[in-house]
Order: sequence, then C-alpha cells, then structure tokens
Amino acid sequence: MTSDRSSRLDDDPAFALHRGGKLEVRSTVEVNDQKSLSLAYTPGVARVCTAIADTPELADTYTWKNNVVAVVTDGTAVLGLGDIGPEASLPVMEGKSLLFKQFAGIDSVPIALACTDVDEIVETVVRMAPSFGGINLEDISAPRCFEIEQRLRERLDIPVFHDDQHGTAIVALAAIRNAARVTGRELSDLRAVVSGAGASGIAVSRMLIRGGIGDIAVADSKGLIYEGRPGLNKYKAELAAISNKAGLQGSIESALAGADVFVGLSAGEVPEEVVATMADNAIICAMANPNPEVHPDVARKYAAVVATGRSDFPNQINNVLAFPGVFRGALDVRATQITENMKLAAATALADLVGDDLAPDYIIPKPFDERVVPAVAAAVADQARKDGVARA
Amino acid sequence: MTSDRSSRLDDDPAFALHRGGKLEVRSTVEVNDQKSLSLAYTPGVARVCTAIADTPELADTYTWKNNVVAVVTDGTAVLGLGDIGPEASLPVMEGKSLLFKQFAGIDSVPIALACTDVDEIVETVVRMAPSFGGINLEDISAPRCFEIEQRLRERLDIPVFHDDQHGTAIVALAAIRNAARVTGRELSDLRAVVSGAGASGIAVSRMLIRGGIGDIAVADSKGLIYEGRPGLNKYKAELAAISNKAGLQGSIESALAGADVFVGLSAGEVPEEVVATMADNAIICAMANPNPEVHPDVARKYAAVVATGRSDFPNQINNVLAFPGVFRGALDVRATQITENMKLAAATALADLVGDDLAPDYIIPKPFDERVVPAVAAAVADQARKDGVARA
Repeated sequence: MTSDRSSRLDDDPAFALHRGGKLEVRSTVEVNDQKSLSLAYTPGVARVCTAIADTPELADTYTWKNNVVAVVTDGTAVLGLGDIGPEASLPVMEGKSLLFKQFAGIDSVPIALACTDVDEIVETVVRMAPSFGGINLEDISAPRCFEIEQRLRERLDIPVFHDDQHGTAIVALAAIRNAARVTGRELSDLRAVVSGAGASGIAVSRMLIRGGIGDIAVADSKGLIYEGRPGLNKYKAELAAISNKAGLQGSIESALAGADVFVGLSAGEVPEEVVATMADNAIICAMANPNPEVHPDVARKYAAVVATGRSDFPNQINNVLAFPGVFRGALDVRATQITENMKLAAATALADLVGDDLAPDYIIPKPFDERVVPAVAAAVADQARKDGVARA
Repeated sequence: MTSDRSSRLDDDPAFALHRGGKLEVRSTVEVNDQKSLSLAYTPGVARVCTAIADTPELADTYTWKNNVVAVVTDGTAVLGLGDIGPEASLPVMEGKSLLFKQFAGIDSVPIALACTDVDEIVETVVRMAPSFGGINLEDISAPRCFEIEQRLRERLDIPVFHDDQHGTAIVALAAIRNAARVTGRELSDLRAVVSGAGASGIAVSRMLIRGGIGDIAVADSKGLIYEGRPGLNKYKAELAAISNKAGLQGSIESALAGADVFVGLSAGEVPEEVVATMADNAIICAMANPNPEVHPDVARKYAAVVATGRSDFPNQINNVLAFPGVFRGALDVRATQITENMKLAAATALADLVGDDLAPDYIIPKPFDERVVPAVAAAVADQARKDGVARA
C-alpha cells in the first residue's frame, strides 16, 4: 500500500523532506583498514574500557556520552495533536534532535517510549541514563510530566529538563521582561493573566513569579485558579499558593479587565471585546500554535507589544532560543542538574541580547540569531559554577 | 585530575582516537532558515505525525526508525574484560555502532543499561522499542543473555539479535564448512569439540548442529557436557540433549583425541601434546582474543586449517562478517524477526563468497571484503521472504 500512498503524500514538501527520516549516526573517526579497526574496536578499545572501569569520569572524555542528550517522550502531548503515541511522535523528536545539533552541536537521540505510567517512565530513563549526558523530556502530558521530571532530577546526576515547561518559560520571561522595559515599566509593575495550566502554563507562571512579576492569575478550563478552589491537583494547588494575590475568582475574561499582560498557552480563543478591556500599554503573548488565542492583527489594536509562537509575525516566542544554549552550557561544565537560577540566567542572557535595538516589534532575538546559543550557554555555565553544580 | 591524566593517556593512540567519543548524530536535511524549519519542525512536522498516527507503518518511511538499531548492553560480559558496568562498556558499543554504519549504512545507538536483572532489561528494551528498527544485544553475560533474547523475540515485532551468540555462530559455521571442503569432507563427516559453553559456545554449537555436523561435544569449566550431568542449567541441558551423541564424559582433552575440529570460545589454553592427538586433517578455530587457546604457530604443526579471531593471522573469524549484513537484510525487508533459517542463509552466503579461491589459509572472506555485506544481506532478505517474516 505504502508506495502509492507515500508518493502522493510526497507532493507535500513536509513529507518529501521527511522521507527516510531526518537523522543519521555517523562515526567521527575513520575506520577503513585493519589498523584503525584495531584501535577503534578490539583489541585497542579494551584499554579505554579498562581505564573507564577504573576511573568512571573518564567516560566523559573518551566516549560521546557527555555530548549526547536523550529526547524522551511517551507521545502523550505532541504539539497540539495530543496523545498520538510514541511512533507518531518520532518526527517531532527527530526535529528536536536536529535542532540540538544544528544550534548547539549537541548529539541527541529520540527515545519514544511505549509506556505512559509515571513509575515505568522514570525507571526506564534511569536505567538508560549511563548512555547519556542529559535528558530532555518532551511532549509528555501534564500533570504526569511534573512528577516524572522531579523524580528523574532526584535520581540522576545529569541535567534533566522538560523543554515544554522550562524552554517556554525561559523565553516567555525574557520576552515579557523586555516588553515591560520597552513600555517603560518593571516586571513588578505588571499584573498578568495566563490562559492554560498545563505543563507550559504552570512553568511560565512559576518563572514569571520568580522573575518578580507584580501579580499573576492563571486560568484552566474551569476558570481562574485560587487557593482553596475545589478539585485542584497538587501542582495547581502549589501554584494557587504563590499566585493570584488579588484572590480573583471566576472567568479568565473577568481577570483580563485592566490586566497588563496576557499569556496564552492554551488553544482557547480570547474575544476581541475582552482584549479591549485590558490596561493601556498591554502586552499580549498569544502562543498557541498555529492559531494564537488572539490574532496578532487584533491584538495590535489594543496592545503595545504583541508576541506569538509564529514565525510570520514579529516577536516569536520559540523554544529554540532556550534549550540548545541551556544544554550546551550545562554539558560544557558537566552540570549535575539545571537549577532554577540557571534558567533565570538563561532568560536574562536572552533578554539582554536585544540591547539597544529594543522596540515593540523586537523584544526577543530571532531564532536564527547566532549570538543566542553562545550567550545563553555562557550564562548557564557561569551560573552552574556559582550554584555549585558544575563538575568541570 | 583528568586533564593531566588524560593527556598522558593520549600517548596511547587508542586513547587519542577515542577522545570525545567515536559517534555523532547528524541531520540528513538542511535547516538553515525559517522556511526549512517550518517543514522539518512545526508546523509542517505535524502533518507527518498525524499521518503516522493514522497509518502506523508510515513511520518506516517518514522517520529514521527503520534504519536505526539499538546496541543494548548491561556491561556484564564486555570483550574478555567481564563485568565492567555500563559506562565502561560504552567504547565497545560505540565501536559496534561505528561498524554498523561503516559496513552497512545502518544508524545505531549505544544503550548501556544500569540494570542487570532479566525482567528489568526486557521491560526496558520493550519500552524503548518504538524508536528502533532492530535490537542488537551485546556483551550480556550467559545464561541471562539467552532468556533476555528469547523474551524480547517473543515481545517485539522487530529483529532481535544477540551478536555474541549468532554473529560468531554464523561466521564459525561458514568457516568450518569451507574448512571441511578444502580438506575434502562434508560437515557431516566431522566430529567437533567446543571449548566454552557461554553465549558464543552454546550458539556456535547449536549452529554447527543445525548446519549438519557429524557430532559435537561441548566442554565448560567442569568438563564435557552430557545428558544427565548434575547441575546443568537449562541451556546446557538443552544442548546436552542435541549434542555429544557419543556420550563422552570427562575432560576436553580426552574428547580431543581423534577429533576433527576444535572450536575455542573460552580463555583456556590447550596444551600442544593434546593438540597432537587430534585426527589427521584437523581443523582448529582458536577464537579467544587476544590469546588463542592454541597459538596458530603451534596449531599449524598438527592441523590442516587454522583460524583465529586475530587480524594478524589468516582466516580471521570476525563478527563484522555477519552482523552488518544480517541487519541490513532484515531491515531492508522489514523482517519481524531473524529466523534460524536466515542465520543459516547468512552463513551459506558468507562461505560461498570464497568460491574457487578456497585454500587452507582462505576459508572465510576478509573483514574489509566489500562483497560481504551485500551478499549476506541479500541472502538474509531472501530467506526472510521465504520464511514469511518480511513485511516489505
């Protein structure tokens, strides 16, 4: 069946590009005769193995381990497609690996798992961890993703980073901090409303709070999250305790009246008349893809700064601005973890790159800006040393 | 510590070659602007994911999965070094991956596991299997390796192959069949003695029996294996039931008197006076590395054909003659497993390549013979179709 079907599919350039996959594993050494084979493989390799058995940290020098990140998913929350399973998630994971290499020279391997149980995912990743220098969790649904990440961080002494949470949060914080600056305010002057309390919604909210936002109210499908709201899961309850100082209840629409910042991390649409009730100089980050919660053309009528997840409008909030540099910095110093301070340092470095070019349509560097990865990596490595988690 | 130590280590060319590891993951597509990014990643990738979710076998066409083999170990039986653990095994696993690519264009990824329990290894590999087109088990100690392979074969619908067993067995059968031919005999004319009843010893013995050897007696550290010998594990008991028709008991030395073939797959040395008791036109395959059970210079005094595992003597029994072609053939037709017939077909193809050049010092192709992988792959793919395990 597939040959006919796939030749039709290949009329779509996305399919044509994906034919045969997007990755390959290559050797970095030449092995084309008996002599080189005897160094790269038996008998020469035995001396390297023995040295690592005696001095385990030599694995970082004499294997590829310290430059390899596993991109781990269970396929339960892939892009906006939801739970499509491990095989169907592979094109996204290959894409992630491709970006790791392209942007940061990091080798990475898609590992799509045929299990969704938290215990099973944690055990599986712990068992395969000796092969890797870091673990990038990807497209695992909330709230399981929070527990998986936390337990892996406790069990492993290599960086564990759930990009859907922290990558988005780092870039959003950088963008909103610069949006405040371009409108003559501090983060602490702003009251924000976040739509969505999944992985990215919760992580972005936490990051904005750590970054010093004035107040922030987060809404899920049942409305605003506040302390004591019945039926909150552990992670939303924790968020309720540190957000929504004003104690707002009810709909997200009510909270948007007079709000300075809207952060959209759900698929829900925000009507124009609600956008119109926001404060002067509003900041709108409508990050749902491919359809932002507020279309940029509408948002611009009411807001001073508009950002989206899309590449065809200004101010693209794109994770590729964060994860390559974060891992590059962490691997460079053999960090045992990625601390909250390291994430904040990444956001600061990213925001600072904009410098004097700051403008309402330029609050965040563009994805292909070559300054980004070195700047983020340096800031993350530096902070790892300050936090005492660097081993090199 | 490591910088001084490792610069000293690098005086050894094997260490210098291993610095930074031997592998990298690269993209096979160019992503250098927004347009290519939007095809290789969001939003274009979503269409490919959706198509695979609808029609799972499209993953073989539009991801790298069907060309990627996991090289899985627990580090318990690495080369002759024994149980050195997962990190220290990585240089060997990287070497294996390098050979997969070099010889057969197969991408492969070292997965060194931090567990040795059979159940845990099986579950871990089953869970990560959606990412891979095949599983190559490597350097896992016997007898656990037998159960792990068998259970994975039952659980997975992709090829599972323990190279230490079957790679060695395929090449040994090809070599011994040609050794028989060059000395004017059939395999069924020969009585063989195998030293070693670990992974390779048992697998080679089974393969020689399937290939039609006259009789074969296998010895472990306690002497010859025979039906009813106390304390045999399940795998040795199964082997006892199909080998040693003569019912020999006692030492390997006693069995070698008058034997036609010696197959060495242990570290034990065989004294010259014992070698001298073998039959005329004896065939000696002394495969222990780096020190063969019988030195080739000694073996040649008494035997018509001598093979070793070493590259510096004629007739090198090297797994690289088997595993790249076996997996190439299996992946090419998307085989659901590697059947016994497919292994026999690989051995026949390998033996046949020697053709009219057959000579006592040329019973098996050399490792860098470019005819090997295509011939083995074609034979394996053809047999997969005949056995009804090919999906393409």
